[in-house]
Amino acid sequence: MMFWNQEIETLERGKLEQLQLQRLNKTLLQAANAPFYKDKLTDSAGRPVQLKSLEELAGLPFTEKKDLRAGFPYGHLATPRRDVVRVHVSSGTTGVPTAVYHTQSDLDNWTDLVARCLYMAGMRADDIFQNMIGYGLFTGGLGLHYGAERLGAMVIPSGVGNTSRQLSLIRQFAVSAVHVIPSYALKLLDSLREMKLDPRDLGLRLLIVGAEPYTEEARQRIEHSYGAFACNSYGLSEVNGPGVAFECPHKNGMHLWEDNYILEVINPETLEPVADGQQGELVLTTLCRQAMPLIRYRTRDLCTVLPGPCACGRTHRRISRIAGRTDDMFIIKGVNVYPMQVEATLMGFKEVGNDYVIVLTNDGPVDYMTVRVEIAERYRTMDSETMAKLSQRLGRALRDELLVSTRVELLPPESIPAVVGKAVRVDDRRKH
Amino acid sequence: MMFWNQEIETLERGKLEQLQLQRLNKTLLQAANAPFYKDKLTDSAGRPVQLKSLEELAGLPFTEKKDLRAGFPYGHLATPRRDVVRVHVSSGTTGVPTAVYHTQSDLDNWTDLVARCLYMAGMRADDIFQNMIGYGLFTGGLGLHYGAERLGAMVIPSGVGNTSRQLSLIRQFAVSAVHVIPSYALKLLDSLREMKLDPRDLGLRLLIVGAEPYTEEARQRIEHSYGAFACNSYGLSEVNGPGVAFECPHKNGMHLWEDNYILEVINPETLEPVADGQQGELVLTTLCRQAMPLIRYRTRDLCTVLPGPCACGRTHRRISRIAGRTDDMFIIKGVNVYPMQVEATLMGFKEVGNDYVIVLTNDGPVDYMTVRVEIAERYRTMDSETMAKLSQRLGRALRDELLVSTRVELLPPESIPAVVGKAVRVDDRRKH
Repeated sequence: MMFWNQEIETLERGKLEQLQLQRLNKTLLQAANAPFYKDKLTDSAGRPVQLKSLEELAGLPFTEKKDLRAGFPYGHLATPRRDVVRVHVSSGTTGVPTAVYHTQSDLDNWTDLVARCLYMAGMRADDIFQNMIGYGLFTGGLGLHYGAERLGAMVIPSGVGNTSRQLSLIRQFAVSAVHVIPSYALKLLDSLREMKLDPRDLGLRLLIVGAEPYTEEARQRIEHSYGAFACNSYGLSEVNGPGVAFECPHKNGMHLWEDNYILEVINPETLEPVADGQQGELVLTTLCRQAMPLIRYRTRDLCTVLPGPCACGRTHRRISRIAGRTDDMFIIKGVNVYPMQVEATLMGFKEVGNDYVIVLTNDGPVDYMTVRVEIAERYRTMDSETMAKLSQRLGRALRDELLVSTRVELLPPESIPAVVGKAVRVDDRRKH
Repeated sequence: MMFWNQEIETLERGKLEQLQLQRLNKTLLQAANAPFYKDKLTDSAGRPVQLKSLEELAGLPFTEKKDLRAGFPYGHLATPRRDVVRVHVSSGTTGVPTAVYHTQSDLDNWTDLVARCLYMAGMRADDIFQNMIGYGLFTGGLGLHYGAERLGAMVIPSGVGNTSRQLSLIRQFAVSAVHVIPSYALKLLDSLREMKLDPRDLGLRLLIVGAEPYTEEARQRIEHSYGAFACNSYGLSEVNGPGVAFECPHKNGMHLWEDNYILEVINPETLEPVADGQQGELVLTTLCRQAMPLIRYRTRDLCTVLPGPCACGRTHRRISRIAGRTDDMFIIKGVNVYPMQVEATLMGFKEVGNDYVIVLTNDGPVDYMTVRVEIAERYRTMDSETMAKLSQRLGRALRDELLVSTRVELLPPESIPAVVGKAVRVDDRRKH
């Protein structure tokens, strides 16, 4: 059996769009219960907005992160409070927090979507799955946990941190699949080397990799080192968390579940749609959520809709890996730079190790970008002349990619300290 | 409606015991699938052991923590591995880890038991519940989380740590119920005082307090400070985790769910049963577990079966709060001491603050016990003469309780650093 839900996953395009329209109109009615949408989804005569075609969706306003903040805590809640059984709250480090609500039916649906993703990636009931990611308010932990349990895998809820314990558990239970953020998957390689363990001897066959953007070059490193499929996972807490889009073993983009979401890709400046194959900001409309439907939510994640069908037989369209977040972009010397462009360039060099950080400084009006990057363990004893040449080669490659001159500082292996949770890729020390 | 499951909770004693015997025999058959129990639960003719009465259970051998360690990882697993959907692993800080397995049916049953407990404590679907306890491998977080979701409360999975964030969430969402370990409930009082907040203004009406032993004196402090019901919760990871026994609002002991567990209380030295009302070690036999049935499991927790019926109408017997763990007991000058005896004495003094630690040292063959204890905030400015007298009074009270002389060292409020997770009550620095 190849599918978790064959009928839905291979639904003929016309029927899929028919289902979308039907669910969209139901969602518009439901959303109108939320204070934020009440006026937006009611026409001048007080009648609820209902659409005749999916194209008409483009006439409705966007929803943005700042709307969620402004509506905190209950502005987007579309059900009575007593029907809510879970709330995930963002940390609000950048300001006011945001809250995302779920009814029992929402959780069931989310869980089923994650199980569908994991099944597509190749996980089965006889897999032993270690969930090496944060539990609690962060949606990655509980989201994958529920989905893997539903699928019937044996779940080890190991959470974050304590590398030596994580590795012990993998070996003691002969773990076959893990969920991990990409920067930690790379950091673990250093710990394994110190313990004189070959990552391939762990016997992992599947790494679910998500929760932060990373590059194809980093994925190839992970796959080569562990000898396993590193499967890309995409989601965002405002739209449940993991389970929005996932790779199938063909590894040509992530299937986005169009029975649950309507996807649009827009130019983040003009807000106009971009053509398939062109990069833009992903915009999602939920189709099955009760507690907190979102209409045309601007994810701030940059991706491309990939053209053509997938050999796996699923009819749901694929998006490219996330090229970056509009939030992560920084401007240096008037040029827009995404950390993922830097990573893609660095990871193409075999001499480059598993961690890096981009440091931004200024001296009066002049900005400087320095990329501090670890060299790979097997080049630890590189002589100073070779190092100087490597710095130059990296600097040139970065300038060619970014169109900005960059200083490169080579560091010994493992000199950048590990962090618990998502990696911090940009250290902006500029005084403005 | 007073009950989560009226029929089971108020089942007439004779019928309850009939149900126990029937489930026990089913459990014995199931347990015999595990390597550890195979020989123990098969007679010399190779027939499975089946009992004619509950009294015959006393003829079966005990199961101990060390058996779980020796059988790690799969010695106690009684189902095929592919039927397992969750494993909780103990940290193994004291040696080899232990693993506890659950099928989907086990998780459903555990979740229902926790919902039953929370409903008994007064939680309802319109409660807003903050689960301020560790998620992941620790059973307290996921156990209460699943149960509260099943009950239909709005669950905020805040996890441990980050006190200011915990307090923000309580206030932003008007949280009505929390799950907290007792030492953290006391520590929070200090943070609230610093923020010049009255704990009663938080508006909590229910604190579920568990995961570490604490005294009635500490409970009264918590209830008085927050103006809320502090409900005692009992469980242990080997037997799921939370959900084994819980208080009803009559607060006269914790109802232990006898449809799921057979309880015995034994003298930990002679291993003979003690009479109701006498303190001993709690021994539990599971009646509904598939993946990992336990027969006569020695919990190492000390308690008393409380005689007489409860006014709430539930027929399941009550155990006293846990007086200590046989593991926590230490011997000083030949006398057995439990940390809870020290806490009960200290918390009886209004001048005593919210944290303490017992330090054991020696000088050659002579042992010394020093109790380092914070004074309460409102006595911060106490003069040295009064302090000396207070030390003496505490020292006398401790000696009367413990029958061992004790040094008392008074500390300023909040001078003992907060720990993440369970409080460390004994610091044994003796060199042997």
